Amino acid sequence: MNLSQITSCFAAIMLCAHAASAAAAPKPRARELGIPLDGTPGQLNAITDVASVAVGYTTLIEGSGKNAVRTGVTAILPRGRATLEKSVFAGVFSLNGNGEMTGTHWIEESGFLEGPVMITGTHSVGTVRDAVIAWRIEQGNPDPSGYWWSLPVVAETWDGDLSDANGFHVKAEHVFAALEGAQGGALAEGNVGGGTAMVCHEFKCGTGTSSRVVEIAGQRYTVGVLVQANYGVRSELRIAGVPVGKFMPVKPPEAQDQGSIIIVVATDAPLLPQQMKRLARRASLGLARNGSYAGDGSGDLFLAFSTANAAANHVASFELRALGNGQLNPLFLATVQAVEESIINAMVAAETMTGRNGATVPAIDTGELKKILQRFDRLQR
Amino acid sequence: MNLSQITSCFAAIMLCAHAASAAAAPKPRARELGIPLDGTPGQLNAITDVASVAVGYTTLIEGSGKNAVRTGVTAILPRGRATLEKSVFAGVFSLNGNGEMTGTHWIEESGFLEGPVMITGTHSVGTVRDAVIAWRIEQGNPDPSGYWWSLPVVAETWDGDLSDANGFHVKAEHVFAALEGAQGGALAEGNVGGGTAMVCHEFKCGTGTSSRVVEIAGQRYTVGVLVQANYGVRSELRIAGVPVGKFMPVKPPEAQDQGSIIIVVATDAPLLPQQMKRLARRASLGLARNGSYAGDGSGDLFLAFSTANAAANHVASFELRALGNGQLNPLFLATVQAVEESIINAMVAAETMTGRNGATVPAIDTGELKKILQRFDRLQR
Amino acid sequence: MNLSQITSCFAAIMLCAHAASAAAAPKPRARELGIPLDGTPGQLNAITDVASVAVGYTTLIEGSGKNAVRTGVTAILPRGRATLEKSVFAGVFSLNGNGEMTGTHWIEESGFLEGPVMITGTHSVGTVRDAVIAWRIEQGNPDPSGYWWSLPVVAETWDGDLSDANGFHVKAEHVFAALEGAQGGALAEGNVGGGTAMVCHEFKCGTGTSSRVVEIAGQRYTVGVLVQANYGVRSELRIAGVPVGKFMPVKPPEAQDQGSIIIVVATDAPLLPQQMKRLARRASLGLARNGSYAGDGSGDLFLAFSTANAAANHVASFELRALGNGQLNPLFLATVQAVEESIINAMVAAETMTGRNGATVPAIDTGELKKILQRFDRLQR
Amino acid sequence: MNLSQITSCFAAIMLCAHAASAAAAPKPRARELGIPLDGTPGQLNAITDVASVAVGYTTLIEGSGKNAVRTGVTAILPRGRATLEKSVFAGVFSLNGNGEMTGTHWIEESGFLEGPVMITGTHSVGTVRDAVIAWRIEQGNPDPSGYWWSLPVVAETWDGDLSDANGFHVKAEHVFAALEGAQGGALAEGNVGGGTAMVCHEFKCGTGTSSRVVEIAGQRYTVGVLVQANYGVRSELRIAGVPVGKFMPVKPPEAQDQGSIIIVVATDAPLLPQQMKRLARRASLGLARNGSYAGDGSGDLFLAFSTANAAANHVASFELRALGNGQLNPLFLATVQAVEESIINAMVAAETMTGRNGATVPAIDTGELKKILQRFDRLQR
Repeated sequence: MNLSQITSCFAAIMLCAHAASAAAAPKPRARELGIPLDGTPGQLNAITDVASVAVGYTTLIEGSGKNAVRTGVTAILPRGRATLEKSVFAGVFSLNGNGEMTGTHWIEESGFLEGPVMITGTHSVGTVRDAVIAWRIEQGNPDPSGYWWSLPVVAETWDGDLSDANGFHVKAEHVFAALEGAQGGALAEGNVGGGTAMVCHEFKCGTGTSSRVVEIAGQRYTVGVLVQANYGVRSELRIAGVPVGKFMPVKPPEAQDQGSIIIVVATDAPLLPQQMKRLARRASLGLARNGSYAGDGSGDLFLAFSTANAAANHVASFELRALGNGQLNPLFLATVQAVEESIINAMVAAETMTGRNGATVPAIDTGELKKILQRFDRLQR
Repeated sequence: MNLSQITSCFAAIMLCAHAASAAAAPKPRARELGIPLDGTPGQLNAITDVASVAVGYTTLIEGSGKNAVRTGVTAILPRGRATLEKSVFAGVFSLNGNGEMTGTHWIEESGFLEGPVMITGTHSVGTVRDAVIAWRIEQGNPDPSGYWWSLPVVAETWDGDLSDANGFHVKAEHVFAALEGAQGGALAEGNVGGGTAMVCHEFKCGTGTSSRVVEIAGQRYTVGVLVQANYGVRSELRIAGVPVGKFMPVKPPEAQDQGSIIIVVATDAPLLPQQMKRLARRASLGLARNGSYAGDGSGDLFLAFSTANAAANHVASFELRALGNGQLNPLFLATVQAVEESIINAMVAAETMTGRNGATVPAIDTGELKKILQRFDRLQR
Repeated sequence: MNLSQITSCFAAIMLCAHAASAAAAPKPRARELGIPLDGTPGQLNAITDVASVAVGYTTLIEGSGKNAVRTGVTAILPRGRATLEKSVFAGVFSLNGNGEMTGTHWIEESGFLEGPVMITGTHSVGTVRDAVIAWRIEQGNPDPSGYWWSLPVVAETWDGDLSDANGFHVKAEHVFAALEGAQGGALAEGNVGGGTAMVCHEFKCGTGTSSRVVEIAGQRYTVGVLVQANYGVRSELRIAGVPVGKFMPVKPPEAQDQGSIIIVVATDAPLLPQQMKRLARRASLGLARNGSYAGDGSGDLFLAFSTANAAANHVASFELRALGNGQLNPLFLATVQAVEESIINAMVAAETMTGRNGATVPAIDTGELKKILQRFDRLQR
Repeated sequence: MNLSQITSCFAAIMLCAHAASAAAAPKPRARELGIPLDGTPGQLNAITDVASVAVGYTTLIEGSGKNAVRTGVTAILPRGRATLEKSVFAGVFSLNGNGEMTGTHWIEESGFLEGPVMITGTHSVGTVRDAVIAWRIEQGNPDPSGYWWSLPVVAETWDGDLSDANGFHVKAEHVFAALEGAQGGALAEGNVGGGTAMVCHEFKCGTGTSSRVVEIAGQRYTVGVLVQANYGVRSELRIAGVPVGKFMPVKPPEAQDQGSIIIVVATDAPLLPQQMKRLARRASLGLARNGSYAGDGSGDLFLAFSTANAAANHVASFELRALGNGQLNPLFLATVQAVEESIINAMVAAETMTGRNGATVPAIDTGELKKILQRFDRLQR
């Protein structure tokens, strides 16, 4: 691919991104379908309900056959533009580590997430990682030695079933576009960003989001979740507790659970780093509700961060505020609920996709889904 | 308490233990109630389906009012009597560490569980721990310096709601009785052993067990689970995916999730220590199906061991066999399923109990439960 | 042992404790011997230089032959008497987990150490654990359900070479005595408390302590360390970088490194829980300077806590202060230095002891040690 | 940089690599200088003493001033060419996680290292990671879906003090060259590979290696170590226990410990994955001997692997052999010793380097070093 190709490809992406965001409106989300889900979502029912969190996508959908490109990049900026200058407390959890999330040694050590969280396809993690550093150099104000932070967080799920993963189609420009395009507000779901080619329970899947609002000691706090969901076998799929997968069987006999799921949890509640790890661990429980057994091939890596305590930093002492551990239960339950709903949102938003070598993964038939839920009296009217 | 009191108390316990085992028969277990549960259980649907695993209980139910004793000890011997001489590969996972499981630093370091797994009430962990050492000294053949293994594994859940926990009623003799009485075969469930005073989702709960048989590359393997279940709020209780807790509300407004659950997973599949950690982590997903969000106050500590590779030892090199990581999915799913069922078994086996200061915790009304499941077409005929 | 025996034994202990504290004065400590050690100690060169930290010992030295008792209990109260009501931020690290430290699942989960840190012999961990709960019940103000904190931290090292470990000589009363006797001020070292029968590098060893004062951004902070040291082979012993073990060989051919070392690090610097884990991990580096390779049989478990941020609690939100990660280097180096010195202090304070079955472990000959250091020009004048 | 530039640069690298390997001979290694170091090295005193381990370097030294390039790539192939097809058991440890080592979630989960271990500069981790996948695609035999392993292990240390890190000078071709050039035999040390621009204790440093041979139950086993060393302040530098840093002070007042050290431990001893973690953890103790306190800015990440048990795999059950935990002490001590020596080897091999913006880091004056050691009677004749 020469430079002029990159340029045109770049233009194409921006178009894709725009289209994705516009296209999101028509498909009803999980709640709108009548799926009974507990808890109170925020205004957008999205990770962007947590103030300052911005999300950007680059979606690459091009060509067909052997060279079909179905991939992309998702950028989550905890503090929007201020992400470059201000860290957030964070924690990570690996439910099943058959995946990559770079930058986690430092999160575990320091308690901080510095910079954005990026999600892409497995074979593009390196490109995205170095591009984030390049972007930071361009945008940020490193110290005179050229050093600031250089341990970007980049996670991945495998998109080689539908995309030419071995073609390394994600380029630095696509990373810059996702970072530059990041914003608050309603989010596109399904076949967008890093989630473009994802598959859940053998249905087309992708990016999904949700949020919950809770009250603790008279204060309102928001928990927002974004998932890049690519896990699960059909037979285990449960929605709202109904084993719907058994009523929508796949032939031929299904594969093992080989995908992955990256879950990002954001909150504005003032939590300390080890409390963020607690939130990250709870993501497992929401995932379990939809039928994951965390298969061997699944990279189930979760990251949680808090946008509170903006004064926290590496170079000087600082004052901060934290909730007591005994106050966290509403946030734990909110995390479980928002993860559960984000995955369903990813699944019902995704469109059927034909990709590499003509492989086609069907979207879930939401009409049929509603009928099954109805049969078990689990559809809200 | 003087020596003659201890002796008579000891006799009483043996009676209790016997009674518990006899009394288990009449109450139907989860499957017998028609609750739809996936997978194929072993012959006993119990952790003792894993050959060589022996379980013993001491159940202490005495007195009432301020001094009501409702506590006990559960002993799990991975290799029955040979447990004293032969270690098993093991791994642990803490979903929420508000609890105790002693001996885990060495399991994490060595990959081995040496000796039995004991479960009791929170305030008796110390007594049980040292008593296991005393029993090992009596029974075992330590080296001439008196040293062999001395880092017993003892886990706990809080039984102070129904029992006079501050009275420290568990004595060394009760520990010996549980160890000596351990055997294979069908197991009593509910108000027995360490699980005597447990409460789940604000119903009386306790000890439960289940198993699954899977086939991998033409070989049959068994996964067995035993839980001491003491966690959960009513509103979150789900059974077979049905939010039954919402239809059986508690008044006054319910407490937070403050209990705990100890989950022990046994298998005869030949797995390496780090693979045992993977099984332990999957217990979380079975627990999630029943409605846990791993509340702050919950000590959710899980241990998994494998009875294969009996040649594994500390002092000399040894030959062993292991499954490839890619072969583990059936074991992962079996673990999730057996944990889910063990908890329900504990709940439906438990009898209403009145304990300390007259506090009463009702057993779940299984007739009502069946009606609710029926309403959602989730009862098997 | 009947009650009257316990009473007299109890009296004996108080005497022992008193004697130990008095006897500490005459023997020169590491610095007084002229061993070159870096950094600036606090006034007492002890963990008690950290304000509010109190330490109590019960030392049990009785009998001889088969039933020789050479054991004890050490109690460290982070906030002195206020330890019952106020938690401290804490973190733990296991360099080699062939040992026990109870209560660490909750420290890892919550970030808090609640209550004291106890250190004893391997076979007494259970007794000490439950006795701490009993003491808390007596002294504290648990909530009406009888529940407060019940996950005591008790660590151990093996004292069965010199003491009749299988006799379980530590009783609840001895635990109460250590807790009640805890105070600030200068500390006895060597054959005292839980460290009574310890052996390092095949020299008599035991309890040792040291401290460092550092300045960060114009503020003075103290790091204090207490070790119960029981590790190491002679050939690897280094002091001030000099391989002194090679010049003081043991015959017959020496054993493997089979002991253990418990290291407790205290500071008044305002650090968050994950920063406490960082301090705990640095203890390894101080230990390495003296010649440990963390042998398989060694239980090398380290705990660090901060007495700052007294407002931190479990039930309500709180304001706190923390140092930036980039400010921690002086505390890291201070930890390394204070651990190194604490171990040497334990060794040079210990007196030759004859214990079980007449086994005798000699104290290091400090005259000879000085000569060896002198030969390598590593003795300060 | 256009394609023709890349080509010429590529040619230049091969030259550099060759020159480095040739130039290694003249400078005496640590032992040859007379530094007293314990244990018995293998024939080459290098990680390549472990049969099948191959190492390749690409060294990039070009230009000066603002655009000075002083960087490179190191490739370690556990099983030489067979590395593509056969995994090795492995474990990792983070002493201080201010650094990157990708691929570790899967090592922790699976117990396996798949593919090579790569080490480079901080800003090149992404390029190297994706290039390893590209190389595997080219060389290996992935399954028909294009999937095999795709979670490369790439570690880094910061080389921006001497090199134009923000110029991203490492390209895929350089990665291929290091992988293709990997071989057994004697290794260049100092300013080579990923270690080209490293600095230790404010002396020029880089890549170093060492090995030890031990006997366990009549069998000989080798432990080999390779370090990319970039850590430490001058004042803390110790060599053979002598505080040489104090006698070679730096002006102006020295910086904090801000570098990093990647340590790779290889052995042919048959160890299980959790035993490999134990070896990785021991690397800390060797590092400590030379004066590290694991500064906040240091990425101290260690990886250990075993070339034994070549039958171990992911897809089918396998037979294997393991040493008992109680047999590991000689391997633990060997690891400590080989790490200590590798670092000194890196330091004494490195040549003074002038890099970015004219910054110059001097090599240690080995004549002066010998004098200091002599003064403390710590130089072997």
